[in-house]
Amino acid sequence: MFEVIGERINTSRKLVQAAVAARDAAYIIDDVKKQQAAGANFIDVNAGARIGHEEEDMRWLLDTIQPISTVPLTLDSPDPAVLEMAFKMVEKTPMINSISLERDRFDAMMPFLEGKECKVIALCMDDAGMPGSAADILNRARELVKALNKIGIPTGSIYMDPLVQPISTDSNKGVMVLDAVRAIKAAFPEVHITGGLSNISYGLPQRHIINRTFVSLMMDAGMDSAIIDPLDAKIMATIRTADMLLSHDDYCMNYLKGVRAGAIVS
Amino acid sequence: MFEVIGERINTSRKLVQAAVAARDAAYIIDDVKKQQAAGANFIDVNAGARIGHEEEDMRWLLDTIQPISTVPLTLDSPDPAVLEMAFKMVEKTPMINSISLERDRFDAMMPFLEGKECKVIALCMDDAGMPGSAADILNRARELVKALNKIGIPTGSIYMDPLVQPISTDSNKGVMVLDAVRAIKAAFPEVHITGGLSNISYGLPQRHIINRTFVSLMMDAGMDSAIIDPLDAKIMATIRTADMLLSHDDYCMNYLKGVRAGAIVS
Repeated sequence: MFEVIGERINTSRKLVQAAVAARDAAYIIDDVKKQQAAGANFIDVNAGARIGHEEEDMRWLLDTIQPISTVPLTLDSPDPAVLEMAFKMVEKTPMINSISLERDRFDAMMPFLEGKECKVIALCMDDAGMPGSAADILNRARELVKALNKIGIPTGSIYMDPLVQPISTDSNKGVMVLDAVRAIKAAFPEVHITGGLSNISYGLPQRHIINRTFVSLMMDAGMDSAIIDPLDAKIMATIRTADMLLSHDDYCMNYLKGVRAGAIVS
Repeated sequence: MFEVIGERINTSRKLVQAAVAARDAAYIIDDVKKQQAAGANFIDVNAGARIGHEEEDMRWLLDTIQPISTVPLTLDSPDPAVLEMAFKMVEKTPMINSISLERDRFDAMMPFLEGKECKVIALCMDDAGMPGSAADILNRARELVKALNKIGIPTGSIYMDPLVQPISTDSNKGVMVLDAVRAIKAAFPEVHITGGLSNISYGLPQRHIINRTFVSLMMDAGMDSAIIDPLDAKIMATIRTADMLLSHDDYCMNYLKGVRAGAIVS
């Protein structure tokens, strides 16, 4: 089944930042409950936007969210000290967002991850920047799996992000990442594929139809998770529908449940 | 580029049947012009519903449509005599709808098709009924390609219809046909894949979102044509968007043209 990582609790969002600054717990609790009701399988928590306040903001957010969360949390920070604190605060096995092959991030994250029981988002990014081909993405994925396996993270706990790039700059960027996902799944059947989707439509008009058509293509290629806004009803409906069409929904039960809940509308 | 076969001129549609019975040319001309403006690449013409009138109705429809058609016609009849007449009336190389492996239809169509310059829709249907597996679909496609090649129809003129079946009766019917399309395209890269789509959602609520999510999955698998209503704006928008995402739209030109024309809305 497809796993939705709800992206809304991020202090780079204006209303969330205001709520965090004001310690408005009701706002945060309401948002998390809405994401869970809409079908989020993880709640991403990012407190990075208020410079100098990340550790205290993250602590407050986790204190606020932990008691009402029915799903695991995705701890979203580049700072191992913040992650160490956060890791001790959560009850369910968390997901860590993220490691990459960029030397600084890699060197900071590897000692933190070693020996931990967690899931981890691995970005196919290195110091040369964004990948330039499907083979390039696959090579980076291989390096990440190898490094993470070595410190005890099993392949099935890795959520690989192939890094979706805008099709407006190069018509082949869609096929490039679809081919990469297929190649990664062929090489590592147990690895999960995740990531943001909206980059695909950057620079083009009517972005929502591009994003939701793209998610169904990515799911066909092997994507089984995405970092999205679970309150975007149209993309959630497309995900439920594609999941059914791809045989991940016995007797169409989740689809029919979604229709009855009013969450899937033609 | 994806080819849309506009399905609206069919006397099994109530308003079309009334227009044909009344010899209301204006109605038919208006409908065909609308389909062409919406992006139809072929106009399907089916006069089969008024029993005993097929030949005269087909003749009148072609007399009416031929002068204003800017795209080729799809001659849709099981009767070789009707098709022989129709074939002589059209100016552009037509598409014939259809042959199958059902013994009666096969035996009737083969002598008609032999030596003709035309495209042909080939249904993966035989006297045992609907195919039961992806391998079954591929086997039937192989038989059809072999038979048609033998009478001079090149593979690139064959539009194979793998026969979409309802997912409500079996959750695997979506993946079955997707796998079959991939297998057919691997075996015969030049063959086109076409068909109706709406069978996939038969028996389920909110059918439109299923149909349009499914078309993008089918396109990813290799479908490059479909028999649909070009006036269904949402499915047409999904097709244009998926075509762009699959690298069939240089510089996103068709997509941007569609947005400017108001035909693609998020």
